[in-house]
Amino acid sequence: MEVRSLVRPGAYYDSLVLMQLQQALSLLPGVVEVGVVMGTEANRGILERSGLVTEDLEAVRPDDLVVAIRGQSADAAVAALARLDEFLCRTGSTGEREYVPKSLEMASRMLPSADWVLLSVPGLYASGVARQALCLGKHVFLFSDHVTLHEEAELKREAERRGLLLLGPECGTAIVGGVGFGFANRVKQGPVGLVSASGTGLQQVSCLVSRRSGVSHALGTGGRDLADEVGGVASVQGLDLLRRDPETRVIVLISKPPSVTVARRLLEEARRAGKPVVVLFLGYAAPARRAGNLHFASTLEDAAGLAIELAAHEEPSLAEIADSRANPSGNGDLCFARGQRYLRGLYSGGTLAYEAQLLLWSHGLAVSTNDLASSDFRGSSAGRDAGPGHRVLDLGTEEFTQGRPHPMISNDVRIRVLRQEARDPEVAVILLDVVLGDGAHPDPARELASACSQAVAEARKSGRRLEVIAVVVGTEDDPQGLESQVKLLEAAGIRVFMGNEAAVGHAASLARALEECRPLGPPVPVPLTALEPPGAALNVGLEWFAGSLQAQGVPTLHVDWRPPAGGDDRLQGILRRMKGHGA
Amino acid sequence: MEVRSLVRPGAYYDSLVLMQLQQALSLLPGVVEVGVVMGTEANRGILERSGLVTEDLEAVRPDDLVVAIRGQSADAAVAALARLDEFLCRTGSTGEREYVPKSLEMASRMLPSADWVLLSVPGLYASGVARQALCLGKHVFLFSDHVTLHEEAELKREAERRGLLLLGPECGTAIVGGVGFGFANRVKQGPVGLVSASGTGLQQVSCLVSRRSGVSHALGTGGRDLADEVGGVASVQGLDLLRRDPETRVIVLISKPPSVTVARRLLEEARRAGKPVVVLFLGYAAPARRAGNLHFASTLEDAAGLAIELAAHEEPSLAEIADSRANPSGNGDLCFARGQRYLRGLYSGGTLAYEAQLLLWSHGLAVSTNDLASSDFRGSSAGRDAGPGHRVLDLGTEEFTQGRPHPMISNDVRIRVLRQEARDPEVAVILLDVVLGDGAHPDPARELASACSQAVAEARKSGRRLEVIAVVVGTEDDPQGLESQVKLLEAAGIRVFMGNEAAVGHAASLARALEECRPLGPPVPVPLTALEPPGAALNVGLEWFAGSLQAQGVPTLHVDWRPPAGGDDRLQGILRRMKGHGA
Repeated sequence: MEVRSLVRPGAYYDSLVLMQLQQALSLLPGVVEVGVVMGTEANRGILERSGLVTEDLEAVRPDDLVVAIRGQSADAAVAALARLDEFLCRTGSTGEREYVPKSLEMASRMLPSADWVLLSVPGLYASGVARQALCLGKHVFLFSDHVTLHEEAELKREAERRGLLLLGPECGTAIVGGVGFGFANRVKQGPVGLVSASGTGLQQVSCLVSRRSGVSHALGTGGRDLADEVGGVASVQGLDLLRRDPETRVIVLISKPPSVTVARRLLEEARRAGKPVVVLFLGYAAPARRAGNLHFASTLEDAAGLAIELAAHEEPSLAEIADSRANPSGNGDLCFARGQRYLRGLYSGGTLAYEAQLLLWSHGLAVSTNDLASSDFRGSSAGRDAGPGHRVLDLGTEEFTQGRPHPMISNDVRIRVLRQEARDPEVAVILLDVVLGDGAHPDPARELASACSQAVAEARKSGRRLEVIAVVVGTEDDPQGLESQVKLLEAAGIRVFMGNEAAVGHAASLARALEECRPLGPPVPVPLTALEPPGAALNVGLEWFAGSLQAQGVPTLHVDWRPPAGGDDRLQGILRRMKGHGA
Repeated sequence: MEVRSLVRPGAYYDSLVLMQLQQALSLLPGVVEVGVVMGTEANRGILERSGLVTEDLEAVRPDDLVVAIRGQSADAAVAALARLDEFLCRTGSTGEREYVPKSLEMASRMLPSADWVLLSVPGLYASGVARQALCLGKHVFLFSDHVTLHEEAELKREAERRGLLLLGPECGTAIVGGVGFGFANRVKQGPVGLVSASGTGLQQVSCLVSRRSGVSHALGTGGRDLADEVGGVASVQGLDLLRRDPETRVIVLISKPPSVTVARRLLEEARRAGKPVVVLFLGYAAPARRAGNLHFASTLEDAAGLAIELAAHEEPSLAEIADSRANPSGNGDLCFARGQRYLRGLYSGGTLAYEAQLLLWSHGLAVSTNDLASSDFRGSSAGRDAGPGHRVLDLGTEEFTQGRPHPMISNDVRIRVLRQEARDPEVAVILLDVVLGDGAHPDPARELASACSQAVAEARKSGRRLEVIAVVVGTEDDPQGLESQVKLLEAAGIRVFMGNEAAVGHAASLARALEECRPLGPPVPVPLTALEPPGAALNVGLEWFAGSLQAQGVPTLHVDWRPPAGGDDRLQGILRRMKGHGA
């Protein structure tokens, strides 16, 4: 075995050209192994460790081409190296070409209608070029990897300030106005819009949706958009755009498990969309199958299926086994008073209380609780210390039952807590469970209804409206009789449900209606024109992507970009400062 | 305000009698506050701290009754105390009664047909009485709380050894052969069987199921059955019983989030049920909506809805948007060789690989992976160190792409890994993704199919069968053409799916079929007769529960149980040792 290598100084090629070269050289007779890289420090190290170079690479620079070949003989290696230029011609990367601009500024002047820049230069340079593109007022599709989290956060905040989209880094795919960027499938146009921090997730779901429905837009955000430091900037912009986009009737939001804070923010944004949003946080516990306009999916196929169904039927007919019972509220036309906004869940059943917390969270309400067992539940530990606010109590725990009968047997404790909470001027909604059956109190509804009536009347005297909602767990054959218990509660103006999820959902919608409006959406909305097919585009980095855009009919100008200052970091910093882009 | 109290030595009453007394005394004129407790140390402390006693309670013992009253005047308090005996008569706890046995042994001799013991004595004594009941060969419904976790684990292991059920402690509800224990609703008989570590969860689901279908049996296990120390003994027994029970066609398993180890064990048990099992681990991320016969629910209503649907249609028609394509396997009749049992996922898409891990876990397969981001995923970190075994690789991560093109652009790395894995004599199934679209390799199926054909043929020569399964992500309009790519793969004997979930599901079912059989179910099966309506029952503790059983037509003998040795712990220990029940 013999190794031969050569260095071609100042000859920058993108990684696809390098790959094509490598494949061509590998197929030559007597060639065992081939290395074709740009001379960055990392690449030099790999070559040296693999024993593929004989000479000293110390002086090699990032924009030098290094080719190394291990042949069965020295002759084979030398013969292969000799054919380098022939192959370079074949890849179209040398030889005659029409004039191509060497900088983004120049390209932008040559093709002023370009509203997007596709960027796939090495990570080391990506953030600088991306910032240039934003300064030129372009949206950016940033394919490059190795951009630091800090740089990503800065770039996205810059884009946000300018009302521009920056998709990526490591954004592999997007479909904007029917035009695919990067790796994208040719899907049918339709009513389903996607925002995805996962590239292949976006591709899988958009392909499956395309089989039975269609895709309006699919915005990849880069895998780290939902990290705390980045804060989901691109996802929020995407949700906001799809919310306003009249073509999009159903939104799908996809990510690996995001940070708790960012998850909350995104779900808030999704809730105000005013259209169904399918949420897939892979590996994340969905506390409900549905909460308001949010539909929680558990797999990519599940997400696609839900989106198709929702697009076909607007809102799907859920199996409504938990029928709500229509009844007049005892409150007449009385409005909630200023300051009334909180919910109190007063449960006798531990699991019902626990489920209520989970469900309220999925409705975007932070809840405090007395249940120590749930301290591990995301967000609720924060809610626990939140002082006043929404609260769910399990009255069957020891702190309430110490020396007293369980609230399923006796209503005393519950009625005492109920009276106390009903007097709180911040409380608007009270949520109860009423458990029937053998062993339970022989007539719980009578005592509870009477206490509720009194509490509601007392609040009314102070000008406050108090809504009481109850889930009744029981059957017609239970000793208390379901129908008669429900009638007692309804006669007291209590809204009765047969299922906890439905009762909590109703309570949550009241509580949310009473919340103060919070500022939402990106601070500077991205104009809806961002979702139109690109008028034109500039491509910096892999030529491969320019070809794909041109094939889709988008005029695309490829920039003959080279690492600035021959890849010298120090010089590059000086150049950047001279151009006024900050240190 | 004046306080008066009295102590009635050696007069044990259960907590419901105490409650009735308290309520009656509270209603008397001039009475402000009433305390009625047995004289345990904890209760004495509460009374003292609340200022409800004037005298010294130091000498009071656990089986002494203490009554304390705060009156508007001393006269009112004294007058109220004077009526104590009158109220005690009314509660039926003193006065003439037919002969009642004072010990479990005696009761058992008097009513030998009793196969169940309902137990609700104070926690301090519960474990001793429960052990007696097990020694007498009875199933135990253990309502008491304050049994330690260690005692619970010991009792359940004892029950397991004897092929008996011990439901509880803190088991509030069960329905056995149509008879309700504790707090239970009168539900319709039907095909849905429940095993639940949550009392109100069981009640909510059984009530909702009863509205549209019916319940065969509902076994509460106590909230801590799924703790690591207990290991889910009662839940495993319950699943095993419902598996064998011909009346039960669908099983529902309910719990708050269990420990990872116990969750695995229960899901294994559920998988071998041979009937649909709806799993609700509240607040736990269900990695799929369905995996084999397991259906993951997210709320109590959702669980009830799924059970009803499954009972009505056997297996529900899922929206099969991910159509599998029938094609002949290239393996003919060749069987897997001895030792072939593992699966290898070789993915180019990061999210598809991540989802595959989650899905394989939900199918009960422990998977190791190269994806560092997933180290927080339950169980997979354990799987990571498991050495050989099932493995899913994301070939798009840096360790594989360093200096090389991404596997979506070039198949080189994947083909190299594929060849290597195919030679591993333990590998039986290979799972690939093939991502089409703009930007992707122009003809990935041709290269991959050819490599797979070679690998399968090579394995065949060594007498091994190699199954290759692929998920193809693409559309008809993609440049590669979906149909032609699929045909290339199928011609090579590869089983092709359009969705990752379906592909992984198929791979998992093959891998599971190749697993060695593990011993499952409880070591000593509980006889199916345990699910018959109790022939008779013994009740120790709250009389309330005996009344409910009698009302349901079950002959029930109430045991006039008193704390042994007057509640003296030390003496009690001596007595127990004398009877040979261990220290």
